[in-house]
Amino acid sequence: MADWTRSGGSGESVADETTTRVHDAARRARRAARELAALGVAERRAVLAAFADRLGESRAVITAANAADVERARVLVGSGAMSQAMLDRLKLDGGKLDGVIEGVRQVARLDDPLGVVTLARELDERLRLWRIACPIGVIGVIFESRPDALVQIASLAIMSGNGALLKGGSEAADSNASLFGVLVDSLEACGVSSEAFALLGGREDVAAMLTADGLVDLIIPRGSNAFVRHIQLNTTIPVLGHAEGLCHVYVDESADPAMARRLAVDSKVQYPAACNAAETILVHVAIAPAVVADLVADLASAGGEVRGDDRVRALSGKTAVAAATEADWSTEYGDLVVSIRIVDSLDEAIEHIATYGSGHTDVIVTESRDAFERFFRDVDSAGVFWNASSRFADGFRYGFGAEVGIATGKLHPRGPVGLDGLVTYKYKLVGHGHVVADYGGAGGRRFTHRPIED
Amino acid sequence: MADWTRSGGSGESVADETTTRVHDAARRARRAARELAALGVAERRAVLAAFADRLGESRAVITAANAADVERARVLVGSGAMSQAMLDRLKLDGGKLDGVIEGVRQVARLDDPLGVVTLARELDERLRLWRIACPIGVIGVIFESRPDALVQIASLAIMSGNGALLKGGSEAADSNASLFGVLVDSLEACGVSSEAFALLGGREDVAAMLTADGLVDLIIPRGSNAFVRHIQLNTTIPVLGHAEGLCHVYVDESADPAMARRLAVDSKVQYPAACNAAETILVHVAIAPAVVADLVADLASAGGEVRGDDRVRALSGKTAVAAATEADWSTEYGDLVVSIRIVDSLDEAIEHIATYGSGHTDVIVTESRDAFERFFRDVDSAGVFWNASSRFADGFRYGFGAEVGIATGKLHPRGPVGLDGLVTYKYKLVGHGHVVADYGGAGGRRFTHRPIED
Repeated sequence: MADWTRSGGSGESVADETTTRVHDAARRARRAARELAALGVAERRAVLAAFADRLGESRAVITAANAADVERARVLVGSGAMSQAMLDRLKLDGGKLDGVIEGVRQVARLDDPLGVVTLARELDERLRLWRIACPIGVIGVIFESRPDALVQIASLAIMSGNGALLKGGSEAADSNASLFGVLVDSLEACGVSSEAFALLGGREDVAAMLTADGLVDLIIPRGSNAFVRHIQLNTTIPVLGHAEGLCHVYVDESADPAMARRLAVDSKVQYPAACNAAETILVHVAIAPAVVADLVADLASAGGEVRGDDRVRALSGKTAVAAATEADWSTEYGDLVVSIRIVDSLDEAIEHIATYGSGHTDVIVTESRDAFERFFRDVDSAGVFWNASSRFADGFRYGFGAEVGIATGKLHPRGPVGLDGLVTYKYKLVGHGHVVADYGGAGGRRFTHRPIED
Repeated sequence: MADWTRSGGSGESVADETTTRVHDAARRARRAARELAALGVAERRAVLAAFADRLGESRAVITAANAADVERARVLVGSGAMSQAMLDRLKLDGGKLDGVIEGVRQVARLDDPLGVVTLARELDERLRLWRIACPIGVIGVIFESRPDALVQIASLAIMSGNGALLKGGSEAADSNASLFGVLVDSLEACGVSSEAFALLGGREDVAAMLTADGLVDLIIPRGSNAFVRHIQLNTTIPVLGHAEGLCHVYVDESADPAMARRLAVDSKVQYPAACNAAETILVHVAIAPAVVADLVADLASAGGEVRGDDRVRALSGKTAVAAATEADWSTEYGDLVVSIRIVDSLDEAIEHIATYGSGHTDVIVTESRDAFERFFRDVDSAGVFWNASSRFADGFRYGFGAEVGIATGKLHPRGPVGLDGLVTYKYKLVGHGHVVADYGGAGGRRFTHRPIED
């Protein structure tokens, strides 16, 4: 990569070469993805089986490549340029690789998302309309340091007949190159063009991808809010990305206090860096005296820093609770910090979530079905959970096999994006010479608009 | 409006006032739409029935308002500032109004799009997941001179539980104000807040709407390609809009020549300004001698100007055919002009459509099922039709009751956007205190991922 970027004369010619190269890769991915989409589901499953097998056979090569990445990363952690959490995510040892391989086999077992008919309607005699699921085309994915992301994304793309431009974290360069090599070999061994996938290099490749409107159908940036925002503002290609994961747990007046504590702790502490971790816990004033002191103690003993409003601090007992400021309600900590606020009603909780939430996942803890139904109806988030941890908002846990990301937008797809989110549809209309001029007006033909039964 | 824009001191304070006013309207629409969405389907149908009734009762007021718009437009047509076609679209006489009212009743008869369950899955014992259709929220629609568009959009929004900011053409200002008044009265008469809808004023209102990220969920600009592009580049709100309608009719070697002529004429001539009108006809070389001369004659006698490649011109007989240039293949004429090209194979036709098409609607005329299946698989357009006119690509003809626009994007919705396209979904997860910490690892709980039968 370093040599290549030096090969151009001026910066501009490098940029031109990069654009040409990335756009050509997108064009080839487009053509090859059409072949991939034309395969039957048995053939796509065979490609996934070959991929899983070869990943197993290449265990030594992959873990060695990963060890090189980890070695370099250790130096960065030592100098404070990388966090330990990031290093942990980067590691791909034998046990983790087994999980990755099992994930590929799991995607192969999912129902075929292609060809699913979601509408079948007779418009008139011998004029029939169907809406049929088909691939989106070419997807550009920019993903973080976890090298297993490459395998997840590629598996979902193969099963859904999509091509993909893949840009991993630079710290995982060796791991990704090794995994990508196995992907290419697996496709070619099955007689499928590996050009459906391309591994992109540095930031200039990403910039070139953002200008590939018409060649790339969807960009999925995984990373910080600022990064997703930067991508959105620099491309006319549709972007699928959660801008934020500001999730809430609301403890209703009819909550079971023990369950509320258990769910709040799991939602916050189990993996605080995840986007489906809770940031703010809302407690109904009527149940606060029975919940707050224990809840605060539970969170603190799990290592959490707790911030609360005045009423929370008055009830928090001997655990130290810092004063929460307005900024706390709109902060995605991504860390072992949690804010707690007391609300006077279910409506106030809903209003708080409408004001500060990010439309990701929000939880109500309550024994009242009515309270849940109100909460479900009025909370406008991709996931609205009743008596379950926010951490269940995940493609694997939902049974999607894997996910390419979590969408908080309001257009399809929404929530964890697995196979379903990687297909769109096209309308098939079959007539026998039907023309529009024959319809409407006095004496014109009328549409029947009947469902098609056969 | 003119007075209002003058009321501010500096240009900047006007812009600030406009932004505040439009954003407040969006905020109120958001709140009121939540109430609308909370109504049962019978109540939403009752609102539509009231709307239809009141439109009928207000016939004299509406047609008088429209007559004032038409009177002003006539002056513009006389001075060449407006086309006759635009004036025709602006007219809303008694007969047209009957059609509009029938359209409202038709939307009310459609199945409820809200609450539809598209996934129901047990994740584990007593931990169950559903994916359920819900409204998108607040939609901003910028529509052209046809005042009936306001009624169509409002009807679909009411039935789908969405709020809407409506910005019609300035030439239809009186008609739109009159129709909007009826809409407000109908909602209020049913005890529903009319704040779910707002009628925007001039261009500065549109500019303010484009900055309402977080308050407006989707913008639907109807208008020229340049206009749609302008909107896309000036907002971070998702935009649903066809960038172009460059539709093709491909006459396969196995086509019935008479049917091919009939479909080509209807696709081009029946309403050439529509986005689902064909611009280019592709003819397989093997059938060209049997089709081209008659096809060209048919199109010319229907008033069309025909442009063709060299092979078409050699076969066109006594009808004059101008030489088509490269630019013709990528031009949406929107007028009685059509280009014809001879291709050597089905593959070449597919390639031509991939290169020059806009992903809107493409037609194959053939008696061969194999040829159609190949064409359907490989043509990446929202509508892929077999032996039927491209002009059927329309929400009413598809049986959607009405449409808010046609989407050529690859993410949902695609094609004519009716009720279905105005809902998204949220995931409902119901547990009994389930936490993620209990899953995975040796001895941890395993997901069951079973469909929910009851």
